[in-house]
Amino acid sequence: MRRSIATVSLSGTLEEKLTAAAQVGFDGVEIFENDLVSSATPPVDIRARAADLGLAIELYQPFRDFEGGPPDQVARHLRRAEHKFAVMADLGVGTLLVCSNVSPDAVDDDALAADHLHQLGDRAAAHGMRIAYEALAWGRHVNDYAHAWKVVAAADHPAVGVCLDSFHVLSRPLDPAGIRDIPGDKIFFLQLSDAPHQLMDVLQLSRHYRCFPGQGAFDLTGFTAHVLAAGYRGPLSLEVFNDVFRQADAERTATDALRSLLWLEESLRARLDPATVAVQRLDLAAPPAPEPLSGYAFVEITVDPIAETVAERLLAGMGFGHAGRHRTKPVQMWQQGDVRVLLNRTRPANGDWLRGTAAVSAIAVESPDPARSALRAQALLAPAIPRRYGPGEADLFATAAPDGTAVFFCRTEDSDASSWLRDFEPLPAGATGGTGTLAAVDHVALSQPSYYFDEAALFYLSVLGLGQRDSVDVADPYGLVRSRAVVGGGDRVRLLLTVPALGGGKLPETADFQHIAFSCADIFAAAVDMRIRGLPTLPIPGNYYDDLAARTDLDDSLVDTLRAYGVLYDRDGEGEFFHFYTSMLGRRIFFEIVQRVNGYAGYGFPNTPVRMAAQYRHTAMAGLGA
Amino acid sequence: MRRSIATVSLSGTLEEKLTAAAQVGFDGVEIFENDLVSSATPPVDIRARAADLGLAIELYQPFRDFEGGPPDQVARHLRRAEHKFAVMADLGVGTLLVCSNVSPDAVDDDALAADHLHQLGDRAAAHGMRIAYEALAWGRHVNDYAHAWKVVAAADHPAVGVCLDSFHVLSRPLDPAGIRDIPGDKIFFLQLSDAPHQLMDVLQLSRHYRCFPGQGAFDLTGFTAHVLAAGYRGPLSLEVFNDVFRQADAERTATDALRSLLWLEESLRARLDPATVAVQRLDLAAPPAPEPLSGYAFVEITVDPIAETVAERLLAGMGFGHAGRHRTKPVQMWQQGDVRVLLNRTRPANGDWLRGTAAVSAIAVESPDPARSALRAQALLAPAIPRRYGPGEADLFATAAPDGTAVFFCRTEDSDASSWLRDFEPLPAGATGGTGTLAAVDHVALSQPSYYFDEAALFYLSVLGLGQRDSVDVADPYGLVRSRAVVGGGDRVRLLLTVPALGGGKLPETADFQHIAFSCADIFAAAVDMRIRGLPTLPIPGNYYDDLAARTDLDDSLVDTLRAYGVLYDRDGEGEFFHFYTSMLGRRIFFEIVQRVNGYAGYGFPNTPVRMAAQYRHTAMAGLGA
Repeated sequence: MRRSIATVSLSGTLEEKLTAAAQVGFDGVEIFENDLVSSATPPVDIRARAADLGLAIELYQPFRDFEGGPPDQVARHLRRAEHKFAVMADLGVGTLLVCSNVSPDAVDDDALAADHLHQLGDRAAAHGMRIAYEALAWGRHVNDYAHAWKVVAAADHPAVGVCLDSFHVLSRPLDPAGIRDIPGDKIFFLQLSDAPHQLMDVLQLSRHYRCFPGQGAFDLTGFTAHVLAAGYRGPLSLEVFNDVFRQADAERTATDALRSLLWLEESLRARLDPATVAVQRLDLAAPPAPEPLSGYAFVEITVDPIAETVAERLLAGMGFGHAGRHRTKPVQMWQQGDVRVLLNRTRPANGDWLRGTAAVSAIAVESPDPARSALRAQALLAPAIPRRYGPGEADLFATAAPDGTAVFFCRTEDSDASSWLRDFEPLPAGATGGTGTLAAVDHVALSQPSYYFDEAALFYLSVLGLGQRDSVDVADPYGLVRSRAVVGGGDRVRLLLTVPALGGGKLPETADFQHIAFSCADIFAAAVDMRIRGLPTLPIPGNYYDDLAARTDLDDSLVDTLRAYGVLYDRDGEGEFFHFYTSMLGRRIFFEIVQRVNGYAGYGFPNTPVRMAAQYRHTAMAGLGA
Repeated sequence: MRRSIATVSLSGTLEEKLTAAAQVGFDGVEIFENDLVSSATPPVDIRARAADLGLAIELYQPFRDFEGGPPDQVARHLRRAEHKFAVMADLGVGTLLVCSNVSPDAVDDDALAADHLHQLGDRAAAHGMRIAYEALAWGRHVNDYAHAWKVVAAADHPAVGVCLDSFHVLSRPLDPAGIRDIPGDKIFFLQLSDAPHQLMDVLQLSRHYRCFPGQGAFDLTGFTAHVLAAGYRGPLSLEVFNDVFRQADAERTATDALRSLLWLEESLRARLDPATVAVQRLDLAAPPAPEPLSGYAFVEITVDPIAETVAERLLAGMGFGHAGRHRTKPVQMWQQGDVRVLLNRTRPANGDWLRGTAAVSAIAVESPDPARSALRAQALLAPAIPRRYGPGEADLFATAAPDGTAVFFCRTEDSDASSWLRDFEPLPAGATGGTGTLAAVDHVALSQPSYYFDEAALFYLSVLGLGQRDSVDVADPYGLVRSRAVVGGGDRVRLLLTVPALGGGKLPETADFQHIAFSCADIFAAAVDMRIRGLPTLPIPGNYYDDLAARTDLDDSLVDTLRAYGVLYDRDGEGEFFHFYTSMLGRRIFFEIVQRVNGYAGYGFPNTPVRMAAQYRHTAMAGLGA
């Protein structure tokens, strides 16, 4: 299928938008009139520029408040349309988007509306053009695609067809199955966008919060399958009004957009039966399927020499042992059982260490076929990270996530000569790793750059084949922090993405924190073990436990034990969650120890504000406050 | 009246919130339970701290999902309440807020709900406390204050009353007049908040977008007048859930909050008849009334030596003459008729000039009694700007607006020995000013710091006595820019406040622009005059005029003339607007020349994106791009 994007979905001048769309590999664009009006480039030169870039101009939009209007207005709009067709001829675009009338002046008369569309169709046909009529969700009389099709059918003009827009169908929501009743050759255009599940007026949602397929809550696969089943073979075109995309880097947004279409096409291919795809010659993207992931191979933290000593103390305190040293790089491996943390003391390429800093620089997931995972990443436009190999080092596949974190695909087998573990020289003592109480990496929480939260979620969703949960806003004392979980591999790969809910101003510092949570089988056994090892933990205030006792039916003795070890508690149906935190490693990282009981699926969000407030206090007491 | 604020309305830890509220002069606070739970300070110590700060703790909140619940749940909640009353005793607070039940388990049975409240009232009374029952707008069965009162009346317990919250009444909206039917001594508490006119789900609006009185669209004066008429004499307490306030500086937010109450009390005093205020001994704030403003006395621009030469060229190009020089400071006055612009070349106190910069540093409004205007500003917590006077200099009254702009109150009379004009030594030549075509300052547009947009609007609304219009979002090529007009003095004082609609990330540069618009009687006469004077203006693209011709019925010859002079056009009912722009002065300032026809009341917002895109192009061509 041809892939297209509306210029309104990207930031910048019209010229920048065209360049960005072409750069990442789109086949075409919809030109939004306002972008043209603000441009100093005449339409004929825009056409030449698009041609140079290899972009088709698929649609010109929008033409508003036309059909069913008062006679003098319709006459004026028909004159206006002649101007538009002239501009479109200069641009070399053949289809004009006509939105259903929202004016209070519009008459509720399908026959009249059809007649007006017929007249407009005549004008269009005279220029060798056509019009695509779209039902806006808030159209005065026509606000449903089936109604729009009824009017188009009545208009009965070869140059008049419908435009389908997923937002206007799924936001209401309407059943998209009726799309199959529209003849494919009368569907002149298809616009795709997703939107979050928000309690919000549909107009507000439409103008500010649309997003790319996979980033929201709509079933765009099902929607698009109906449109293809109807016989539509035109471009898949993204039309997304989003305040963040207006402000973000255009090429980055365009990459995110194209990835969303590749993901959609892949899921369409899975939804449709192979015979249909073959017989109908549906040209849908087919990246290598995601490999079934089986957990984390390791998490790597970059440290400077000061942070390294703190990290060593915290890891030892949690029962990790120093199990290996990289053969060629200043990287240590700490281990207990199959849980591995790497400490990387590589000096920054440009300049000195920022004293006391530590950050998660890489996560590694276990894939049965790392090379194939890497091919999938590449097919989904994830940037590969070039690596330099020392003699005898393992060939590791890595890609860069939107926040810069390296994501490695590994197959950890001690017996395998090509295993990445061979890069590490075991230490004589402690080569078997630590003797702690931890079972696995439960989740890794990574802060995301402002404005790339949806991009990050779609990255993990598509590249790693994870599923996503709804966003949760948590009240840090200094602002809201948004969190979204992306989870897969039978819940063995859990990632938590965080971002300040508002950008600008003074941001809540905890929104920039990262953490690694380890699971254990018995939270109190773990707490006792770690207390004996001298692990510094985060103090939790007495007021929390007083409130916990008041609002739950937990035994007093249990609450006393929780209080004694600074363990927090959450409940979710039958599931229970016990968790506690270490003190900080540098300014951004901490560790969490968790126990999930009876299939608890959350992350203890109700306790997060308490944790955040405690971290500010603890940091201030340690004299490390910002 | 006592003035109170809910801790949830301010940023920070509980201790910081108390400090900020006390610092700016609040009498009391509502303590939000989550703030206490996250605090490491035990309740008895919070009580002592509040007492030290001179703050009463007026309310503890919230107690949820109680009345009408299943028997086992009610029993559990009654036990929970005992914990709460113990905490409240430690805090020294006498009233607990009980929100109407939102749970699907709640039974629709007023008698049962009343019985439950009665039982809770018994428990409260045993501790010498009382409960205030509030109807949430989204309560399961009780979501209307009249219904809440009905249940409270049926509960018939001296320790059970209602809490009224303006948000839950005015957001639905319900007619607040029925509040008068509730006995004043049964209204246990009053919570106030405003909210913008937004197409949004009420829960979303409530949790993220509430604002202080005067910042939104509610008639809080009318609402509160009903509550006072009912006989309520408790505190006026602000309960505002707002994402921005959560993140902003607490003391700054507290000042904004207290100003909103002073403004509300003043408008209440105006609404109620004086006899009522006197007889009922209503202790309402009474700042000096706003003086009737009659326009701008001057606008001052701070310039470095390079920007000064550019400013001189632009001012001369618009027909201003160099009319005076300050007797003691490096300030020039440029003038035509009564329009005055000051160029201030004062070196920054700390350090060097940033080359090529210019910024609006002061606006001056004409007041019949500047001293009284200054007293009003002081009463409304606007910070006075201390000034040093040279010998014989006029005593000018100035206050600092939220963006740091100095706002002067002037009375410009040439004949008056105390006029600020006496500070300027007329130049021998040109002492009568320029001979241009400009009539007045039409408006001044000032960019606001991220997150202080509502504060700025309320500042001008209250301190200068202006009225405000709804916000408009305009699409800059690199993001949305929000604008709001504040207007008064018979439309002779118009201010436009701008801010990026989203903070964070790369912001649209035009959101930081400032401009001064001058009115004229004939836009084309002005354009011709200024072209002869060599004024550099902003080129407007041909695509704009092609579109204008297509979408309006303007004569072709008029469109040609608009095109020839780079004049933009807007229409608003019968009103018409003609305007053009100069090139930039430094990186932030430009000038606009406007003509309003037939009472046009807007600012040409539909043309603003075209102006913004042209400015980026023009700046890039001038080699001054960011």
